[in-house]
Amino acid sequence: MSADPITSPSNPRIKQLVRLRTRRYRDRSGLFLIEGDRELRRAADGATEVLEIFTCPQLYLGHNEEALVGRLAAGGAEIVEVGEVPFHKASYRDKPGGLIAVARQFPTGLDRIYLGEDALVLVVESIEKPGNLGTMLRTAEAAGVAAIIVCDPTTDPFNPNVVRASLGTLFCIPLAVTSTADAIAWLRRRGVRTVATTPGATRPHWETDLTGSVAIVVGSEQHGLSSAWMEAADLQALIPMPGSVDSLNSAMAAGIVLFEAARQRQVG
Amino acid sequence: MSADPITSPSNPRIKQLVRLRTRRYRDRSGLFLIEGDRELRRAADGATEVLEIFTCPQLYLGHNEEALVGRLAAGGAEIVEVGEVPFHKASYRDKPGGLIAVARQFPTGLDRIYLGEDALVLVVESIEKPGNLGTMLRTAEAAGVAAIIVCDPTTDPFNPNVVRASLGTLFCIPLAVTSTADAIAWLRRRGVRTVATTPGATRPHWETDLTGSVAIVVGSEQHGLSSAWMEAADLQALIPMPGSVDSLNSAMAAGIVLFEAARQRQVG
Repeated sequence: MSADPITSPSNPRIKQLVRLRTRRYRDRSGLFLIEGDRELRRAADGATEVLEIFTCPQLYLGHNEEALVGRLAAGGAEIVEVGEVPFHKASYRDKPGGLIAVARQFPTGLDRIYLGEDALVLVVESIEKPGNLGTMLRTAEAAGVAAIIVCDPTTDPFNPNVVRASLGTLFCIPLAVTSTADAIAWLRRRGVRTVATTPGATRPHWETDLTGSVAIVVGSEQHGLSSAWMEAADLQALIPMPGSVDSLNSAMAAGIVLFEAARQRQVG
Repeated sequence: MSADPITSPSNPRIKQLVRLRTRRYRDRSGLFLIEGDRELRRAADGATEVLEIFTCPQLYLGHNEEALVGRLAAGGAEIVEVGEVPFHKASYRDKPGGLIAVARQFPTGLDRIYLGEDALVLVVESIEKPGNLGTMLRTAEAAGVAAIIVCDPTTDPFNPNVVRASLGTLFCIPLAVTSTADAIAWLRRRGVRTVATTPGATRPHWETDLTGSVAIVVGSEQHGLSSAWMEAADLQALIPMPGSVDSLNSAMAAGIVLFEAARQRQVG
């Protein structure tokens, strides 16, 4: 423990935590926030560098937080104890669980991605809502993807709502953030087939071969995929909907196609 | 137009709109809020009785709002024009689109549900998050379900976040809210096979026959399905996950199984 607990909500370290909710401050500092024990456990399991861990033991949820804090401290994180009032100010959750960390943003270049044989990749373009991007990360992890490539995003992956909706899977799936042009070139060089999911296609996703080395490409809810992706993709597939076409959000569409890919890969 | 526009945020009618965000006031008044043009369009298409429509034309998004307001007025809704400041107070959105309505809650008894031949039904139990319930409604609509049965919910379907996340599909899918015991008895009497989705099952959802008259039963993310459902269900199915088991939220799990049902029904 470094010092006395922080008791004032206007303490500069509490103010820094609040500032890290804004993209500008994240970009400038190269830091980001991780709140919650499940998220921090995945950060501790991965290679994410946690610099500071702010704790409020009165708010712990009984998820063995002490041991987790010990692990993070052993990895080099400074422990800072915080009173309930300043912790509530620092937290971006309705029911804070007593743990918020500051971590260093990790590199997200395509050069970080290694694809083994028969890799399943999720490519998402121009996603606007952090919650959707986080849900996609979480779902892709469940479906066993090898990597996620995020093209031309309007949200950064270090947004607290991405971290939260991803449940920390942000820290265990290889992730690249790049342009659509670079993603297309990179996948082509590696011989990865690309399947654009679009309501304009005629072939159902289940009649599309999603085995082998394949990238499933999903656009934003509002705008769909760019013409660059529509022209570059090897195949187009649609999710047939007996109901209304506008009734799937982009994360749900990604999940349905990813789990059809998982089905095809397991059925063999 | 009934009178001069409302210009004060402390106008009693604006205060009523804010109060309708709370369950207590919704329950007592039998009313609820519908915000947004897509949501209101679906309400106008269905049988939902819209009593008052609060408009702020300066905030319209160019989605032909005037025509929609005219339709709602023709259906009996009172039009109340509101200035920007009070409208922002009444709105529960970050970017309000200039339309909020007060509607009458419709009955949600099982007696409202009619199942045709080979009906696909979604049953959800103890869902806590309004956003999850809304996403389930929206996704179920896309998958072509005949009805949704909500058992023992901790959120009411008239929560503004259910309306929002459902994109108004709340108004076009037959919906019942009931107890688990009554739902089990009702489905059994109609000869609907019930499939409980649970990580404890051994049979993958894609090896489970989801054609014919079938109800897919999904529990909450935190607690799964109750023992009552686990014992009553005709079959159990799991979604095999090459990645981590806790990486699907309940709405995503429902969507994946519903679209596997849609696939089986279309493949024939």
